[in-house]
Amino acid sequence: MAERAVDVVVIGAGIIGLGIAWTAARSGRTVTVLDPAPATGATYAAAGMLAPVSELHYQEEDLLELTLASAALYPAFVESLGVAAADAGYRTTRTITVGADAADRRSLADLREAQLRHGLAVEPLTIRAARAHEPLLSPQLSSAFNTPQDHQVDPRLLAHRLESAIGQAAAANHWTHDAFLRQNAAGLVHENPADASSRVVGVTLADGSTVTAGEVIVANGLAAARLGGLPDWLALPLRPVYGEILRLRVPEHLRPLLTATIRGLVRGLPVYLVPRSDGTVVLGATQREDGSAAVSAGGVHQLLRDAQVLVPAVAELELIEVTARARPGTPDNAPLLGRVARGPGRAAGDIPGLVIATGFFRHGVLLTPIAAEHCLHLLDGTADARWARFLPDRFSAHPVPAAQPEGVRP
Amino acid sequence: MAERAVDVVVIGAGIIGLGIAWTAARSGRTVTVLDPAPATGATYAAAGMLAPVSELHYQEEDLLELTLASAALYPAFVESLGVAAADAGYRTTRTITVGADAADRRSLADLREAQLRHGLAVEPLTIRAARAHEPLLSPQLSSAFNTPQDHQVDPRLLAHRLESAIGQAAAANHWTHDAFLRQNAAGLVHENPADASSRVVGVTLADGSTVTAGEVIVANGLAAARLGGLPDWLALPLRPVYGEILRLRVPEHLRPLLTATIRGLVRGLPVYLVPRSDGTVVLGATQREDGSAAVSAGGVHQLLRDAQVLVPAVAELELIEVTARARPGTPDNAPLLGRVARGPGRAAGDIPGLVIATGFFRHGVLLTPIAAEHCLHLLDGTADARWARFLPDRFSAHPVPAAQPEGVRP
Repeated sequence: MAERAVDVVVIGAGIIGLGIAWTAARSGRTVTVLDPAPATGATYAAAGMLAPVSELHYQEEDLLELTLASAALYPAFVESLGVAAADAGYRTTRTITVGADAADRRSLADLREAQLRHGLAVEPLTIRAARAHEPLLSPQLSSAFNTPQDHQVDPRLLAHRLESAIGQAAAANHWTHDAFLRQNAAGLVHENPADASSRVVGVTLADGSTVTAGEVIVANGLAAARLGGLPDWLALPLRPVYGEILRLRVPEHLRPLLTATIRGLVRGLPVYLVPRSDGTVVLGATQREDGSAAVSAGGVHQLLRDAQVLVPAVAELELIEVTARARPGTPDNAPLLGRVARGPGRAAGDIPGLVIATGFFRHGVLLTPIAAEHCLHLLDGTADARWARFLPDRFSAHPVPAAQPEGVRP
Repeated sequence: MAERAVDVVVIGAGIIGLGIAWTAARSGRTVTVLDPAPATGATYAAAGMLAPVSELHYQEEDLLELTLASAALYPAFVESLGVAAADAGYRTTRTITVGADAADRRSLADLREAQLRHGLAVEPLTIRAARAHEPLLSPQLSSAFNTPQDHQVDPRLLAHRLESAIGQAAAANHWTHDAFLRQNAAGLVHENPADASSRVVGVTLADGSTVTAGEVIVANGLAAARLGGLPDWLALPLRPVYGEILRLRVPEHLRPLLTATIRGLVRGLPVYLVPRSDGTVVLGATQREDGSAAVSAGGVHQLLRDAQVLVPAVAELELIEVTARARPGTPDNAPLLGRVARGPGRAAGDIPGLVIATGFFRHGVLLTPIAAEHCLHLLDGTADARWARFLPDRFSAHPVPAAQPEGVRP
């Protein structure tokens, strides 16, 4: 059984795993990332909106502080890659939110009240003013709002840059192990194989080999819950929320179709269009919990229909790609991020060597810099207490010591 | 310059070229088919409806005799391949034509009158009766008609069988040349290189080599008009008519979605659904003459929208493929099929060694057996005079001998 020793193993090379691995590598640690197919899951489909303001949802206010903090970290995160922001697909273009009918206008007005209550900047626009920014918006809209600080990134390009940067760190620092192993993780290796709350000292791979590591970070999305060696009592309540994403090419005579990201509500259904600098537009996103990983004909129809309500010229675009992917949802739609308690409460401390970073749902791309920073602080022992609300064991019934009366949960 | 001598060269390995080549090979002739990528053009997209009755269009009655004759040849044509009809994708399932709104009902009623006038069998159905045949048809339709003798074939499967059969003929008869050359034809070789009306004796290929042949059959669709060595005066007025075709997979719990081919008119726009025996459905077909070979977002939207009007469960299917291809249209929507006159009228006879078979527009798959049979009869000198109306030079201004007064066209 081959063994390779590194400081940090990251399980999963989606945008979150790559961001964590890169940040760990920058801190001087050696890293191995395990993934049979990096950046081909939700990252491959994602539109990459960096939109904490427009993404504010009712019942999800707890997330706002995290998403705002991550958006603030984005410029430095991208800069750390050593390429121009544009070459990582990072664009500080504005977001315009529009409503189609009167009910959509009321929904967006309610959302704006919530946004203002949280001190967020959202300016109402007349339709005329919105069309002065974006001439191809339909004149038939009911309402429009400008959110200058909601931006975008191209997740495929960013993932590619992160992979390259990790590879360059490996070369520059003469790592003697592979930075990437194209394999699935099979399970965690514990210091005491009989005790799943003992220190995690590595990962076994699908081929039977092992990577021994000072810390293991579980960032493989929906697959996290199926990883061997997690404590029996730890529930990682992840559910697949599928969505269709279309990519369209704008013919020369219509360029630029849009300069801003357009988010819309059309008869209560959300739809968005994200214009890329290469003349393509990303169109999303349906949300299905029907368990089907296939591209839904009804989903594609809904997106094309509703996008044309907002921007009629969408009919003239070339459809170049249709994908469906699952995002890992959680019961409160917030991530499962942090260390795992060894026992009741956190009195006995956390399981050493183990960090979990999954369940980012709709926000994986936006939250990559804060997830990476928080994981680094966890490794350093300097974690920000504000993020304790996202502890990955918050949905778990911690084991009760035998001495305590049944039913009591600390 | 390599030379290879065969009885017949067929330029183009779409369904028409393959059908002709196979029929020529069956007659005992040696054949070479030239195509860089067989069966990847319109054949790859085509739904394969064999529907002379439902396909009757106003102004196209001249075509009806040809399409009916070809439909009648289909069973024997498929049988000639030596595989079960199902293994060539030939299915004698019925066609049901439905209208969505009152105007669609009137259009279909008018069409039925034309069909009855031509002695074609089309039975009106109540919506209830139509749904007894096809329970997933919408209850909201305005009208329905049954056409038992309009069938279907899977063009990709048929093309594959034709390729195999030609290959087997080559092996069985010990041909000493390649049956398929994956190259474009550059031009015709004439017996007298200075005279484009002299006998055609072969084809030059893109790599500079030549195939010498007793007969050359030009069956490369839209590319036919660009072939070198055709007489200057010969106009092959082909235009690309683009269309989107979607392929969808029916989930297990909805199978069979349909047993009949469904053709519909939805607010005046045609849409059809062809159920394949493998649990997929082919959905078409838009018609665009905008010159764009790309998949149109508007076209895809229209097909998904209108198909759901006819069969609401289409929303639950999996979208597995989206293609756009051009069909070669002609001014009268009928093929360009036959030999080419040497000079004014046909007094001087036809150019020996040359047959043209292109411009099959919407009817390429349906017309394959008759095109193949007619070409064989042309080679044999026994052609059916009824098909003279489709002569490929019918849109050309034949050259006037110098002795005749200017302006006179025989």
